[in-house]
Amino acid sequence: MFDILPIEGGLDNVEGFFSGGVSAGLKSGGKKDVAFIRSDTLCDVGAVFTSNKFQAAPIRHFKRYGEIFQTNFVLINSKNANAMTGEKGVEDIDEIFSHLPRFLNAKNPVMSSTGVIGYRLDTKKIAASFELFDFNAKDSNAAAEAIMTTDRFKKEIAVRVDVEGKGSFHAAAVCKGAGMINPALATMLCFIATDANVPKESITTLLKDAMEESFNAISVDGDTSTNDTVMLLSSAKSGVWDMEAFKEALKFITKHLALQIVKDGEGSKKVVAFEVKSALTLDEAKKAAKALSNSLLVKTALFGEDPNWGRIASTIGSCGVACEEDKLSIYYDDTLVYSPEKKQLDKAGEAAANQVMKKNSFKIICDLGLGDADFTAYGCDLGHEYVSINADYRS
Amino acid sequence: MFDILPIEGGLDNVEGFFSGGVSAGLKSGGKKDVAFIRSDTLCDVGAVFTSNKFQAAPIRHFKRYGEIFQTNFVLINSKNANAMTGEKGVEDIDEIFSHLPRFLNAKNPVMSSTGVIGYRLDTKKIAASFELFDFNAKDSNAAAEAIMTTDRFKKEIAVRVDVEGKGSFHAAAVCKGAGMINPALATMLCFIATDANVPKESITTLLKDAMEESFNAISVDGDTSTNDTVMLLSSAKSGVWDMEAFKEALKFITKHLALQIVKDGEGSKKVVAFEVKSALTLDEAKKAAKALSNSLLVKTALFGEDPNWGRIASTIGSCGVACEEDKLSIYYDDTLVYSPEKKQLDKAGEAAANQVMKKNSFKIICDLGLGDADFTAYGCDLGHEYVSINADYRS
Repeated sequence: MFDILPIEGGLDNVEGFFSGGVSAGLKSGGKKDVAFIRSDTLCDVGAVFTSNKFQAAPIRHFKRYGEIFQTNFVLINSKNANAMTGEKGVEDIDEIFSHLPRFLNAKNPVMSSTGVIGYRLDTKKIAASFELFDFNAKDSNAAAEAIMTTDRFKKEIAVRVDVEGKGSFHAAAVCKGAGMINPALATMLCFIATDANVPKESITTLLKDAMEESFNAISVDGDTSTNDTVMLLSSAKSGVWDMEAFKEALKFITKHLALQIVKDGEGSKKVVAFEVKSALTLDEAKKAAKALSNSLLVKTALFGEDPNWGRIASTIGSCGVACEEDKLSIYYDDTLVYSPEKKQLDKAGEAAANQVMKKNSFKIICDLGLGDADFTAYGCDLGHEYVSINADYRS
Repeated sequence: MFDILPIEGGLDNVEGFFSGGVSAGLKSGGKKDVAFIRSDTLCDVGAVFTSNKFQAAPIRHFKRYGEIFQTNFVLINSKNANAMTGEKGVEDIDEIFSHLPRFLNAKNPVMSSTGVIGYRLDTKKIAASFELFDFNAKDSNAAAEAIMTTDRFKKEIAVRVDVEGKGSFHAAAVCKGAGMINPALATMLCFIATDANVPKESITTLLKDAMEESFNAISVDGDTSTNDTVMLLSSAKSGVWDMEAFKEALKFITKHLALQIVKDGEGSKKVVAFEVKSALTLDEAKKAAKALSNSLLVKTALFGEDPNWGRIASTIGSCGVACEEDKLSIYYDDTLVYSPEKKQLDKAGEAAANQVMKKNSFKIICDLGLGDADFTAYGCDLGHEYVSINADYRS
């Protein structure tokens, strides 16, 4: 038996973790652009990275430490992705970390970057941020701010988990990402810290499992940016371990942050859950749900609040999953808009569906009527702001 | 030896073919919305249809005639796709054609539709168009206009092919489609007429072959609308047959029309050829070229004329083809923007790439440096007008 209690704030809630963010002059206008997360003890660390074949330099730098290692320091910069920078990009990270010992006794420091692809890091500016950091700060709010790119709001979350008969542990995270939905490829970074006594050999597996219904439900596998990273740091300080409780806590955190990313979809106003039901297999349910959340025509219809369910049907029909016209039904929340018996939406049905679409958040349910596999993907609308944001992202 | 000579106009150039278009009141404002194409002799007919699992009623009606049949009459309507209308949708076509004998001696009449999904056809209005048609008209311009939906301009083409020692034949086509690029799913219809003496058993194969580098290069296989149709009618009237000449003529016609569709991409201002070179296999070259032409981030960068080649690289890396960071090079026309040796774009390079992007039409070349397979896909930019057009398509 356990309870998961959301609490205010972010990483600051986890004992022994410190974080902060400063402006190193990478972004214009004195905006924060470099963040750190450190622990006062060594942490086991697990990470899941992008499946993009061109993995950014910080990912290759991380992997140099091998499969299982410990660290107490994470450095993160925005504005520059340090991707497509070759071996020089990795050397630049070494160069930056060569300045760290003057400030901090860091072991196996790791880095994450997000921003524009194809430019070398300004190692001097970033190393100069070590002078600016208060390494004893508990200011994850500033860290969350410094890692933002096109994000409209900061993303952090913390929970306390009370496990009956064992005690309590904490878990918390900061995250960045917006417009993550494929085919947008915008980078998503997430750093989770916990004082739970996570067995080090399980850390990456636990992370992968938690991602399936959270971050992986908002993007299509394989179509990810050069930098995507989800990292879990475990200090074990609480001494408490309960597999089920920790799994649920991770799920809670990652699902919350994934929905925050969708909500922050560039220029988007709506979060829509695409529930595909009764597919033949789980893979097909996922494929269909993600196809819906990615369809440009579906996304623009959401923006226009137009209950044009034909685009839903057409996307289902074209995405390569088993489906039959006379077994399919489509709902907008509780409003049935298509079933084999009800071939045509009447005025009242149209009005009801339109009412649903005016909400900031609703479900589009596609029951394929074939099997018993269900999957929900999350998407957002696509409007003019998306175009404006992405037409000239670098300037 | 043969010559392909583009000539003015459309289907009217092919002897024995008649066509026209009228307003049956499906579209508002008296716009043309129903078209016919007929031949004064029976034609062999071949067609390639959408791979969408929910094939529209007119496609299922067509297939009822079996694999090989002859027809002399095609009816096409816009505004309503007659898709997701079940068996009733096919019966509606029978009902419409039941009125035809009063006007014309048609054998195996076939139909195509494009427009909104999920509504029954207004069979009365469409059948009433038979009263309005001049069945002896040679007015393919009106037919091309009547089949438009979000198209900004009519699409037709005609060629005369002179074959040394054999004589001449004609081939011509009308077509509709805009914003066809996946994941847009907008319907694409194309009707090709010829008086070449095409062997009836080859007609569909010839059509499929011609599509590979034309219509299939502007959309992703499998992600097509409920109604996509490319149809070839052959009257054999010229008595002339030359396989190579006909293949080239078909390729010329379909490539021209495919590029017209890209040019007419909803709200688009640029046509871009994405040339993927030196891929390991042709399939991988296709996959990468199409991924580029479909990437939202690439399309918005084209709109913004921002030489953000990192999005090109990231898309290549995530689309599932073999690629290596230190073998890739990227060009905008002749301007090299990335190579392993040249890691970072300087100001002059940036300016040169930006100049290329200001053109209405240019190439983005990705040389993977791995094998010898090349493929070119065609795409367009995505701007605010796309959103406006698709936010409320039905109204």
